[in-house]
Amino acid sequence: MAEVSSTVRRLTISPAQGGVTAAQGFRSSALHCGIKAKAGALDLLVLASDAPSAVAGIFTTNLVQAAPVTVSKRHLADNRASARAIVVNSGCANACTGPQGLADAEQMTREVAAGLGCDAHHVLVASTGVIGVNLVMDKVVLGIRSAVASLARDRGGEAARAIMTTDPFPKEHAVVVHSDRGSFTVGGTAKGSGMIEPNMATMLGFLTTDAQVPPALLRRALIESARETFNAITVDGECSTNDTLFAMASGASGVAIDEESYPALLDALTTVSRELAIGIVRGGEGATKLITVTVHDARNGDEARQVARTIANSPLVKTAVHGADPNWGRILCAAGRSGVRFDADRATVRVGGVLLFENGLPHDDAAPVAAEHLKTPDVRIDVTLGSGDASATIWGCDLSAEYVRINGEYRT
Amino acid sequence: MAEVSSTVRRLTISPAQGGVTAAQGFRSSALHCGIKAKAGALDLLVLASDAPSAVAGIFTTNLVQAAPVTVSKRHLADNRASARAIVVNSGCANACTGPQGLADAEQMTREVAAGLGCDAHHVLVASTGVIGVNLVMDKVVLGIRSAVASLARDRGGEAARAIMTTDPFPKEHAVVVHSDRGSFTVGGTAKGSGMIEPNMATMLGFLTTDAQVPPALLRRALIESARETFNAITVDGECSTNDTLFAMASGASGVAIDEESYPALLDALTTVSRELAIGIVRGGEGATKLITVTVHDARNGDEARQVARTIANSPLVKTAVHGADPNWGRILCAAGRSGVRFDADRATVRVGGVLLFENGLPHDDAAPVAAEHLKTPDVRIDVTLGSGDASATIWGCDLSAEYVRINGEYRT
Repeated sequence: MAEVSSTVRRLTISPAQGGVTAAQGFRSSALHCGIKAKAGALDLLVLASDAPSAVAGIFTTNLVQAAPVTVSKRHLADNRASARAIVVNSGCANACTGPQGLADAEQMTREVAAGLGCDAHHVLVASTGVIGVNLVMDKVVLGIRSAVASLARDRGGEAARAIMTTDPFPKEHAVVVHSDRGSFTVGGTAKGSGMIEPNMATMLGFLTTDAQVPPALLRRALIESARETFNAITVDGECSTNDTLFAMASGASGVAIDEESYPALLDALTTVSRELAIGIVRGGEGATKLITVTVHDARNGDEARQVARTIANSPLVKTAVHGADPNWGRILCAAGRSGVRFDADRATVRVGGVLLFENGLPHDDAAPVAAEHLKTPDVRIDVTLGSGDASATIWGCDLSAEYVRINGEYRT
Repeated sequence: MAEVSSTVRRLTISPAQGGVTAAQGFRSSALHCGIKAKAGALDLLVLASDAPSAVAGIFTTNLVQAAPVTVSKRHLADNRASARAIVVNSGCANACTGPQGLADAEQMTREVAAGLGCDAHHVLVASTGVIGVNLVMDKVVLGIRSAVASLARDRGGEAARAIMTTDPFPKEHAVVVHSDRGSFTVGGTAKGSGMIEPNMATMLGFLTTDAQVPPALLRRALIESARETFNAITVDGECSTNDTLFAMASGASGVAIDEESYPALLDALTTVSRELAIGIVRGGEGATKLITVTVHDARNGDEARQVARTIANSPLVKTAVHGADPNWGRILCAAGRSGVRFDADRATVRVGGVLLFENGLPHDDAAPVAAEHLKTPDVRIDVTLGSGDASATIWGCDLSAEYVRINGEYRT
């Protein structure tokens, strides 16, 4: 760990080119190994650091966990938070695949490790795609060997596409942090939202930085930043078997993070993660509008989040937004069944900044203005509870007939 | 209270004619007072007992409670569980209507009380319909006076229609219980499911019996029967500002219920409530299929219910059923995120009785048979958790594009 004497002053964060390989010390390679049926569709990614990196991971809270989740958890327990690479495939979730699935996920990490000359537990693995189907390992193994042989600094854009399933567009973002100690970069890529099933999407996220970060601080920053970003989005309230978020810190910038400079790292991770998380919601299945629900004046952040999440997941709110209906009653009722206690007579409801409900009564004359706002692709809902000073934001999307079509017309 | 000496033996329950006035001692009157725009559409109901009846009530758990809920709770606190009548209007929820709304609900009970010659707190009130709009009280008052003057034994069918909003069909049911102590009748009517808003539906339920029931036993029976019936259904997980369930016991049959004969009353209340509750789900907005989700081998009933409810509310499960897709992965994943701990490798998933998942692996060859079952209007999903011997059933419905259309195309 480098000596750190100066404080981090004159901090600025500015956007940077690239995504998961924007930070120094990382290379990637993505290719089509044959998991996806469509010729040429990227379905395999190897992301590697030139030297051992600090690593942290967050996984799905679903009791049903896919093989790559189990294997990555084991490796994180064994590798003392030091990793060389992440291998990801799309098109097959390797979930509900029994002992063979675990063996396959382990083999994926061994193949990468052999190519990089490290131990298998320094390699993590993630998968997304169809549940209940085993990987065709001869294709995957050949793909991994080819990918490891072609790692490059400038292939981050392919990485963002290789992890997609039904995502309508790739998601990547990066920022540079300028400080007295020098500059460091945080970048990342993410895919797919809320959906869990055949051809639908797990949420995967991969973040990299060239700051030098002690593993415990990296883990803390990942958890803190995810709370306000990846864990603050919802498409349909579902939680997949494969959800995975990894962060790696190469240290290649020479800028060391300690308790004092921790806020700079957290800021950067949060900025990148927010951009990626909102991208996931915008690309949600059937989504036509991003809904930003902010709950104000709650007793604490957890209660604010709980109310905001209940509103963002309410089918009646989501369909009302889809139909551009400024239906404050549905918003208030969702808040009322969230499990958080508040006085409805002291609550207010705003749509697009327009006050629609206060003092227990509606402002019906304001409805037409709110209805115009609801025709835009960026919808804001603000609810004040009048019971404290905490606030929280959850990002969701509308519920369209297209969602039903996508998820109802699939046939096994 | 009558003397009771014999046990209830040779108990049988058989269907009876009528609904909320099938039991002796009750009369009803329903009419169009002008709340609903459509000429002649029934929108007002008075249900009265000939003499003071025992009464019990259950209300929405939503923090935002409509005026009639507040007023009925007050009256139940004041009337020592003795009531003469229930007055119900449809077309206006009298919710989010401030002090005027409370005054209006009180006035409704006073008008009924004046007509019957009792105190206002012996009258309960319920409303369903548009939120945030006040009742036009001159129409309501004239309607109540006319209704009280025309109470009759044979108008239960009109009662079932007078409480409807967007319900596609009226719901009423009754049974006769034959026992050594004589026969008594339980009947009822219910309306509307899950929806909370303009022209959408609150759940209202009204049960009557001519058994003679101590108020404490009536309340216990209502809570217990609702747990497996009205509280075991879901259309979209929403909970209205107005949800109300009342039970009245006139005692007119002369059959007295005590601890020993309590199971007979509970059975009858549960039978009637189940029929009404399933009717609500079948009539859910956009619903084309009833889904009966039963979770077996749970540690306790609460956990079984929690898993079943998460499955029944999962948008991915609901869309899969709509599309006749035997998607066991979505069912298993919903169970896995329910918050109940179980071992997925010991769980099984059946659709229409067809085993699709066990020992951590799918039975893909069975999928076509399950897909055929999913094309029927009565879909069964069974999940075993392998962690105990408790079970529970939740009834839900599929999610269709029609649901989105109904709830998204409304404009304020």
